[in-house]
Amino acid sequence: MIDLTGLKEIFGGEMLVEAKDVTRYGVDQIGDDHYRQNPAAVVFPTETSQIAQLMKWANRTGTPVTPRGGGSGLAGAAIPVAGGVVCSFKKMNRIIEIDTENLMVTVEPGVVTNTLDKELMAHGLFFAGYPMSEDICYIGGNVAENAGGGRAIKYGTTATYVLGAEIVSPTGEVLHFGGKRLKDVTGYNMLQLIVGSEGTLGLFTQLVIRVIPRPGARGVLLAAFPEIRQATQYVAALRRVSSEVPSSIEFIDGETARSTNVSMREGDRQTLSPETQAYLLVEFDGPDTDAVDRLLQAAAVLVGENGGAADTMGTQESTMEAAWKLRKQVPWWVKRNAGSCHSLEDVVVPPAAVPELVMFADHLRSSYKVPIAVFGHAGDGNFHLTPMKAPEMSQEAWEHMIPDLLSELYGEVVRLGGTISGEHGIGRKRVSSLSVALSDAERASMIAIKRALDPRNVLNPGVIFSESEVMAE
Amino acid sequence: MIDLTGLKEIFGGEMLVEAKDVTRYGVDQIGDDHYRQNPAAVVFPTETSQIAQLMKWANRTGTPVTPRGGGSGLAGAAIPVAGGVVCSFKKMNRIIEIDTENLMVTVEPGVVTNTLDKELMAHGLFFAGYPMSEDICYIGGNVAENAGGGRAIKYGTTATYVLGAEIVSPTGEVLHFGGKRLKDVTGYNMLQLIVGSEGTLGLFTQLVIRVIPRPGARGVLLAAFPEIRQATQYVAALRRVSSEVPSSIEFIDGETARSTNVSMREGDRQTLSPETQAYLLVEFDGPDTDAVDRLLQAAAVLVGENGGAADTMGTQESTMEAAWKLRKQVPWWVKRNAGSCHSLEDVVVPPAAVPELVMFADHLRSSYKVPIAVFGHAGDGNFHLTPMKAPEMSQEAWEHMIPDLLSELYGEVVRLGGTISGEHGIGRKRVSSLSVALSDAERASMIAIKRALDPRNVLNPGVIFSESEVMAE
Repeated sequence: MIDLTGLKEIFGGEMLVEAKDVTRYGVDQIGDDHYRQNPAAVVFPTETSQIAQLMKWANRTGTPVTPRGGGSGLAGAAIPVAGGVVCSFKKMNRIIEIDTENLMVTVEPGVVTNTLDKELMAHGLFFAGYPMSEDICYIGGNVAENAGGGRAIKYGTTATYVLGAEIVSPTGEVLHFGGKRLKDVTGYNMLQLIVGSEGTLGLFTQLVIRVIPRPGARGVLLAAFPEIRQATQYVAALRRVSSEVPSSIEFIDGETARSTNVSMREGDRQTLSPETQAYLLVEFDGPDTDAVDRLLQAAAVLVGENGGAADTMGTQESTMEAAWKLRKQVPWWVKRNAGSCHSLEDVVVPPAAVPELVMFADHLRSSYKVPIAVFGHAGDGNFHLTPMKAPEMSQEAWEHMIPDLLSELYGEVVRLGGTISGEHGIGRKRVSSLSVALSDAERASMIAIKRALDPRNVLNPGVIFSESEVMAE
Repeated sequence: MIDLTGLKEIFGGEMLVEAKDVTRYGVDQIGDDHYRQNPAAVVFPTETSQIAQLMKWANRTGTPVTPRGGGSGLAGAAIPVAGGVVCSFKKMNRIIEIDTENLMVTVEPGVVTNTLDKELMAHGLFFAGYPMSEDICYIGGNVAENAGGGRAIKYGTTATYVLGAEIVSPTGEVLHFGGKRLKDVTGYNMLQLIVGSEGTLGLFTQLVIRVIPRPGARGVLLAAFPEIRQATQYVAALRRVSSEVPSSIEFIDGETARSTNVSMREGDRQTLSPETQAYLLVEFDGPDTDAVDRLLQAAAVLVGENGGAADTMGTQESTMEAAWKLRKQVPWWVKRNAGSCHSLEDVVVPPAAVPELVMFADHLRSSYKVPIAVFGHAGDGNFHLTPMKAPEMSQEAWEHMIPDLLSELYGEVVRLGGTISGEHGIGRKRVSSLSVALSDAERASMIAIKRALDPRNVLNPGVIFSESEVMAE
C-alpha cells in the first residue's frame, strides 16, 4: 500500500482514493478492459510546484506516477501501474497567453485541444495539430504522444508546433527547454526528446505552441471509387500533380463507410453506393473560397480520370461537417460493432507503399477470417487497420488469434519500410512488439536514456518498455 | 601518443598522420586560431562498418574521435581534441537514391549541400534547408548542427527535413532511427535528439531527407530604410499582413552593407545610399512569376508605408543573385576586415523582440567602443551580431574585452526570451556560456544523456560540455 500521508501533505484533501472513484482512471480509450489497472490514488495538481513535490515523494517512496490528460489515448500510455498514483492535469487548464505578435500561445497541459482552437479562432489564428479526438483530448496529451491526425500531410504532427515547455523531470526538478523562439541549438534537443515520450521522461506543466494565421477558407471532396486500387492511384496522382498540398486525404474502405453511415442518425447520413470499394475525403484550405474551389475542381477532375466519382463537394461548413462526420464516426462504429474485441492499429508505411499495405489487409482478412476496417490518413501512409471479431467467432478464439495477426501485420509494415505506430504510440499495448521495429541495440539506447533521467523508474513505468527491461542492469 | 596500429588495421594506409597534413583539420571556420587543436590522425571511412570499428577501437583505447563534415562550422564543433582522431566524411558522399514517388532522398553525410540541391533541381525537387555556406558544407554537418539559415522563416531548419538515419553510436553500434515515413512514434525520438547534437551523440552514416516540389518562381526585394526602427517595423508589418510567408527576410545594417559592397568586385556592387541605416532582403517563392510578382508588389507598397524604398526588385536570376551576393558576402567582409579579431554570433530572440535586440547593439557599440556588424535572419529573430576590433584597439585589449561583451549580449538575449545560439551551436566556443541559457539541472539532464550514450566520453569530447563536466561523477 502506498503512503497516503505524504501525498496529503502535498495535495490536501484534493485527491481520490476510494475504489469507486479511481476506477475511471484505470483505463483509457484502448477499448479492452484487459489492460485495466486501477490506481491507489488520483491527484489533481493546480501548480508546477506540487508536481515537483510529487515526483520527489515518488522517488523517496518508490511509488509509480502516471500522468494523465484527457484519457483519449489508444495504446494505454495513461493506464497506471496497479496501486500507483495518477497525476491528472484536469485542473491545470489555463490558456496563459495568446501572443498575437509572435504567433505563439502559452498554455497549461490540461486545456482541451478544441477549447484552444476556438479561442485562437477569435484571433484569426489556428492550431494546426488535428487529432481526431480534439473535443476531449488535452493539449498536454497531444504533445506527450506527438499526436498526428488528419492534417499532418500539410501541417506535420503536433511536435512540429511545440517551441518550448516547462517540464517536471522524473526526479522532481523543474526544467525549461526551448521557448518563444523559432530557432534554438543551445545544447541537446531535450524538448523534442520528451515530446512524444508518452509521459515517461517528464511531465509537461506549461507549453509554448506556435500557431499560424487561420486559412481564409476550407473545402472538401468526398470521392467514391469502384476499386481500392483506383483510390490509391488517385492519392499518388494527387500528390504528384496538385499545386497545393491537400490539408487532409482520408481513406475509408467501402464496407466500413456504409456500416458507419447506417449506424448514424438519419439526418447525418450520406448517400453511399453499394458498389463503392473505397472512399476518400480530400480537404484543401487556402486564402479564400475561390482559391479553394479551384483546387477542389482540379482534384475532382483527377477523381474522374482515376475512375471515381465526386459524391460530395463544397466549401460550406455544413457540407464539410457532414463529410467529416462520416470519417470521425468510424472508430465509434468499430467500438459499437465489436466491443472490446477489436484492435485499432495505426501502422505507417512510405506513401508509395500504401497500395501494398491496403492489399495486405485482404490477405489478413482471408488468412484469419475476420473483418478488418481500413481507414485513416492515406496522404501520409498512416492507416488504422482495425481487425474486429467476426460474429461467428468466440471471444477465446479472437484472443488467441489477434497476437498472431498483429505480429504478421507489424512484420509486413516494417518490411515495407514503415513502422508499427505512426501516431498512437507504444503505450502499454505494443511493449512486447517494439522489438519488431527496433533492434536490441536501438532499444538499449532508449532504455539507457530512460535510466539516466529516471533512475528509480517511477515515471510511467511499464509504458514503451517493460518494468523489468528498465530495471535490469 | 595514440595507437596507430589499431587504426591502420581498420583504414589501411588511407589516413593522414603527418603534422603538415593534419593541421588543416585542427580548425574550422570559427576564424580564431586560438581554438586550434591538431589531431594525431585523420581517417576517411568509405563505409559504415569502418566507423563502427573506429568507435569500438576508440572505446578500447580511450581515444577521442571528432566527426568532420565540410569544416564550415562557426563554433568549433569540428575541432578535435589535440592528439585525437578526426573522422572525415569526405569519401562518404554518394547520393544513394532520389525517390521521386515518396519525395525523399537517401544520402551519405559527405554530400555537399549544393550538390544535392542541383541534383534535385533536375527532378523539380528542392531541399528546403539553406545554410549560407551551401557551396561547401556537407549535408551531414547541416544535420549534426541543425543548420538554420536564410529560409527557415518559411521552411524551418534542417531538422524539419530529417526523416531517418543510419547512425554509429559512440560505442560503435550501428543504429537505424526513423525512415521513409512521415509519422513515427515508435519509442523515443532518438533521431531528433542526435540531430543537432553536434557530433557528440552519434555519427550519421546515411540520411533520409524529405524534399519538396521546387517552387516555380522566386523573387527578391532589396529595401532601404533611413532608420533601423522603420526596418524592424516593416518586418513586423510584413509578418502580420502578407498572405504568404516570405521565404527569407534578411537584415543588414547600413554601414555593414556599404562596407561589404565596396569590398566586392565592381560588377557585383549595388548602388547604396549613404543615408540608409538598414537594408532588408525579402524573398518570396510561389507557383509562377505572376504570383511572386504580386507578392513583391504588395511587399514594396508596405516598404513605402514604413518609410523605406525598394532599391532592387525582380524575379530574374541575375537580380536575385546580385542581391543575395551582398548578403552572403557580409561574413567574408567581416573576416577580411577584422581578421581573427571578430566574433560572429547567432543569438536569437522572439520575433517581436527584434527591435530591442537591434537597439541593444547600439548600447554595446558605445559601451565597448567597437564596431558591431548587425545582419542575419530578421524574419525569425536570429541575428549575426558581430563585434569587431576597432582599428585603434590593441589585440590584447580586444581579447580582454570580448568575453565581457559577449556575456552582456548573452544575458540580454536570454532576458528577452531568446537564447545564445540559434543555428551555429555551442561547439567549443560557447561551452562556458551554456550556463547563461540553461540551469544546472537542465545541463545535468543533458550530461546524463551524454554519459548514458557515451560512457567513456570518446565521441567529440569538449564540444557542448567540457570534458571535466562529463567525466565528473
